This record gives sequence, structure tokens and C-alpha cells, in this order.
Amino acid sequence: MAVKKRVAVVLAGCGVFDGSEIHETSAVLVHLSRKEAEVKIFAPNIDQMHVVDHLKGSPTEEKRNVLVESARLARGDIDDLADIKINDFDAVIFPGGFGVAKNLSSWAVDGNACTVNDQVKSTLEAFHKAKKPIGLCCISPVLAAKIFPGCEVTIGKNENVDGRFPDAATALAIEEIGAKHISKDVHECHVDEANRIVTTCAFMCKAPLHEIFDGIGTLVDELLKIA
Amino acid sequence: MAVKKRVAVVLAGCGVFDGSEIHETSAVLVHLSRKEAEVKIFAPNIDQMHVVDHLKGSPTEEKRNVLVESARLARGDIDDLADIKINDFDAVIFPGGFGVAKNLSSWAVDGNACTVNDQVKSTLEAFHKAKKPIGLCCISPVLAAKIFPGCEVTIGKNENVDGRFPDAATALAIEEIGAKHISKDVHECHVDEANRIVTTCAFMCKAPLHEIFDGIGTLVDELLKIA
Repeated sequence: MAVKKRVAVVLAGCGVFDGSEIHETSAVLVHLSRKEAEVKIFAPNIDQMHVVDHLKGSPTEEKRNVLVESARLARGDIDDLADIKINDFDAVIFPGGFGVAKNLSSWAVDGNACTVNDQVKSTLEAFHKAKKPIGLCCISPVLAAKIFPGCEVTIGKNENVDGRFPDAATALAIEEIGAKHISKDVHECHVDEANRIVTTCAFMCKAPLHEIFDGIGTLVDELLKIA
Repeated sequence: MAVKKRVAVVLAGCGVFDGSEIHETSAVLVHLSRKEAEVKIFAPNIDQMHVVDHLKGSPTEEKRNVLVESARLARGDIDDLADIKINDFDAVIFPGGFGVAKNLSSWAVDGNACTVNDQVKSTLEAFHKAKKPIGLCCISPVLAAKIFPGCEVTIGKNENVDGRFPDAATALAIEEIGAKHISKDVHECHVDEANRIVTTCAFMCKAPLHEIFDGIGTLVDELLKIA
């Protein structure tokens, strides 16, 4: 039997508009489970940038903590990202969701001038330095674009083909930061072999949920192959 | 091309300990998407019984609303259960999670003497009366056991086989209410053909996530066959 791959999954809260995208996270965990990976889930112990009422689509006055809300996706089995030990893992995956652009970085507010949370940055740098693969879904590739100049990532198509890629402008923004955007559809992922970064667009494409699920399956497969 | 089946999915919040179980809900939606069902998501517009800090596993002083939190799972595309029109649907599914036993009924507090939320009860009765199938995951079968005397449901095995069914006592409780418990494993579902109720144990079994995902796929398949 093959040795089990050990994969860290890093979350940003629980909910598409202020945290990790729930269905992307669940898809990552289902595919890792099927491949018999050993998974540990992490999140930074910080306040969310804000809380969004997902019914109204507008911010509330509440305060919530990224680690505590991420624990909902982890069914309680989660650790503080401050305690991650890179040596314990063969790869890391960041699902998408606005939490990545609001809590793990300031991309939602600052765009290309954004900063990346220190723990997130040092985690990504450590995996990269150790040549352990990094998987990024949806908007998470902006983290790599910001930290690893010249890396190749996809957030979908370069243009809004058939109205399926309404956020295609993000591809331009990624090129402006200094990364290379590779145009890919929802069922595909891109593997940057030099940087060992695997990316898929997920909900950046307006696609049926099972196509997003399958695209994330492709990312998990490719990531585990090189882990 | 076959006519698309129209399925209502009813949620109870967002998180295993005080709402709908996230991965069960996502699995239901992925499988319905693959089968090209037309899905609408509902939840009652009521306060949660309580809010559980999923990191600590203990209640907090917060207040949250079942509809607003369920909207996280629905990415904002959700309606008040009070507005559901049974004629618009061919079937209904309730994922599991403690929210079913805390927000949709009082089962977590009152056990067999529990009451079921009025909107949930009238929704289930209306689908049942119209002979439209009802799908129930995990702990949700207690709703049917309470409302439809003599119905057949599964919440897993009758005994804690191999330590995989730690909540097997719930099977006894279901028999005491007056329903019939059918012993099934995580990859199976049970179809009560007379009552058109389809059930699967999901997280009532300590199984790898992809097995729970596949078991819910079986439920969705069987439900759509008879819808």
C-alpha cells in the first residue's frame, strides 16, 4: 500500500462572502478522503475583516473569529495556523471564498497593493521552499501571485467566455502583480511545475456545482501526484 | 431529454453542532446538480436554539437566525420555509446535523417527547400527502418517525458494530416512538416504498468523508427514481 500523503488544509472562515467557500472546502476534503490522504485543518486565530449576512448580502455589526468559524467546516477538528509544522505535511491546500481576500489577505480592499497575513505568508513560503506542492482554489491564487513573482496560476478564463467568467478582470490583475495567468476551464487545473503550485478556478466560473466539485478533484489528483 | 426533477432542500443552520451538517448538505447539492435536478433551498426564519462554538464545542451567548446562517450554505440563494409551495416540487430533502434536533425539532432536549417545528411538520405532511418522496439524512429520520407512525427509516446499524455506530441507541429511540428502524450501513439508504421516505445514516456512522458522500449519493439516486 502506498504511503499516505499528509495534507494541510487552511481555511479563512465559513461562508462564501466572509470566509472559506463551503462547497469548495467540502469538495477538497471529500477528494482527499477518497485518496486516503491524512488531513489536518488549520485557520489563523484572528478576527474576520467583517461578518456578512449571507441572506441580505450586506455586512452586520457582529464580530466573528476566523478559527472559530472555520471549526464549523472542520467539525471541531482544527488547529491554530500559528502551530502548523511544515515537516508534518507533504502538501497544503487553500480553498477559495472571499475570506481569502478579506481575512487571509487584504486583496478585497487593496487589490494589487494588498498585504498577506503573516502566518499565511510564512506558511506558503515554507511549503514553497521545501518544494512541497501548494493547491489553491478560486481566488486563493492571488496569494501565490503576490508572494511568488513569476509563478503561473489560473482563476479561469482570461475573458468572460459565454458569461461564465464574470471575474475575468482578476486574471488581468494577477498579470499586473507579476504572475502569469493561464486560461483554464472549470473542470481543469493548472500545474506550475517549477513552483509546484496547482490552481483551479472553482466558483470563479458560473458552473453547476458538480463541475466545480470535479474541477477540485482534478486539483487534488494533480497535487497528490507531485506531493 | 428527461424532465428535470424539482427538489426542495430544507436547512437548519450552518454547522454540525447547531445547524445543518455542512458536508452532508454539500453532498446533497453536488449529487442533485449532477442529476440535473432543479434545486431550491429553504430554512425557517427562526432563532437557533443556541449557538455552539465549534472550536470549544460549547454554547456561546450569541444569537443567530436559522435562515440567515443557512444562507451561507446556499450562497445567498435561499427562501423562507414559510413561503414553500409544495406544487413547485417533486421531492424534498433534509440533510442532518444537530440543527435538525435543536432548531427544526426539540429532539436534542426532549427526546421521544419532542415537538417538530410547525412549518417543518406541515411541509413534511404536505409532501407525504401528495406522495412526493422525502429524503432524510443522519438524524433527520427522527422527524419522520415522529410525524408518520409506522414508517421505516434508518439511522445506521442497530448496534455499534466495530465502534462505527456510537449513536446506535437512537435506533432504539426511533422504535420506541413507533417507527420501524432498518439496519443499514453508510453506503446504503433505505426506501420505505409505502411512505416514499428515503433515509441514509451519513455522519451517524464514523466513516471516511467520501463514504458519507457516496451514501448520500445513493439516497439522491433512489429519491429521484421515485420522484
